[in-house]
Amino acid sequence: MQVAILVYDYMTALDAVGPYEILSRLPGAETIVVGEQRGPVRCDTRSLTIVADAAIDEITTPDVLVVPGWSGFRQDNLLQPGPVQDWLRAVDEHTTWTTSACTGAIVLAAAGLLTGRRATTHWLAIEWLAEFGAVPADERVVRDGKYVSAAGVSAGIDMALTLAATIAGDQTAKAIQLLMEYDPQPPFDCGSVDKAPADIVASMRAVREFIINGTPKT
Amino acid sequence: MQVAILVYDYMTALDAVGPYEILSRLPGAETIVVGEQRGPVRCDTRSLTIVADAAIDEITTPDVLVVPGWSGFRQDNLLQPGPVQDWLRAVDEHTTWTTSACTGAIVLAAAGLLTGRRATTHWLAIEWLAEFGAVPADERVVRDGKYVSAAGVSAGIDMALTLAATIAGDQTAKAIQLLMEYDPQPPFDCGSVDKAPADIVASMRAVREFIINGTPKT
Repeated sequence: MQVAILVYDYMTALDAVGPYEILSRLPGAETIVVGEQRGPVRCDTRSLTIVADAAIDEITTPDVLVVPGWSGFRQDNLLQPGPVQDWLRAVDEHTTWTTSACTGAIVLAAAGLLTGRRATTHWLAIEWLAEFGAVPADERVVRDGKYVSAAGVSAGIDMALTLAATIAGDQTAKAIQLLMEYDPQPPFDCGSVDKAPADIVASMRAVREFIINGTPKT
Repeated sequence: MQVAILVYDYMTALDAVGPYEILSRLPGAETIVVGEQRGPVRCDTRSLTIVADAAIDEITTPDVLVVPGWSGFRQDNLLQPGPVQDWLRAVDEHTTWTTSACTGAIVLAAAGLLTGRRATTHWLAIEWLAEFGAVPADERVVRDGKYVSAAGVSAGIDMALTLAATIAGDQTAKAIQLLMEYDPQPPFDCGSVDKAPADIVASMRAVREFIINGTPKT
């Protein structure tokens, strides 16, 4: 079972590394980190670099596809027609599972893969799903057929554990959860938009507007 | 405020990327990924590569130090006297916070930095803490003075959010938690050794024994 994890400049590292840490430990999994080209990609904070070990034209028939999201300015390279979108559509014809974390769902939707399908994404980007033809669902992990999407950033962990149970059974998923010691104890109960203080939500929405209409941090 | 994240061959990616994703978003944070040498390191699954943007001799006075753990064979390069241990002791003289996720605490303890101090680590490695002079504490996040340690892998997220609140205040930590949409919904309630099925715990302990007495996966 080949697990292909797409990486790209300005991606959010945890979107990819959460699912990677789980899916790469499934029995028989061969995990490959793939980019438009081979080589380093710089994550959104500009302070972490992950290496693409394969280029998209080298990976043609993955069984599981994971598309992470990004933060900051709009990813025109991914959201408009081009080699990455072509690749996503081509490999999706072969996948058993096509998945996303955070705004990775926007990338899949922009490629036309979520048209008419229920999906989720980061709460700040949820409106974009409809813009690209998907049906926004306000849940942490959403499955519609073979398409499995996660809400923002850390939700990729829950998505991948859920998928691990479906692929390899509850016992294996539980073992991986224990191996990761995933017994979360967040210091605050504010990790979703309906639980967070209203002033924090409002200021983040304002920052989002600024970012979308501003220029990328270089 | 400089945040230095140590990376090394066979590390567990999420141990580093969880805290990175939080601490790098603190106001005024300058985050640097540092290795014994500059360049790529291969994580424990051998399918993910992270790049050290600086060598240890280039980073002398970080404010926050994050040491991730590893899985698999024993990390003799880190657990025995050598350049990394020398560096850890040297930078620790300057840090405001010296932190670890997972078996990163074993690395700190082996360098003599946790002697007589309460600390935690991955549940499969908890006995090692005492072997290296620390006082094992069976908690998810343990603070003793400026030393903050997290339990296995995913616990680094809780550790870093707790630290973020201490450094920058609750409001900032809550904003980062919401940005990460960290409202965990694990599929099973088995993420700690006292909650997991006994047969899974037993088989993992058996695998651990095999790994410790075996040879590394290359």
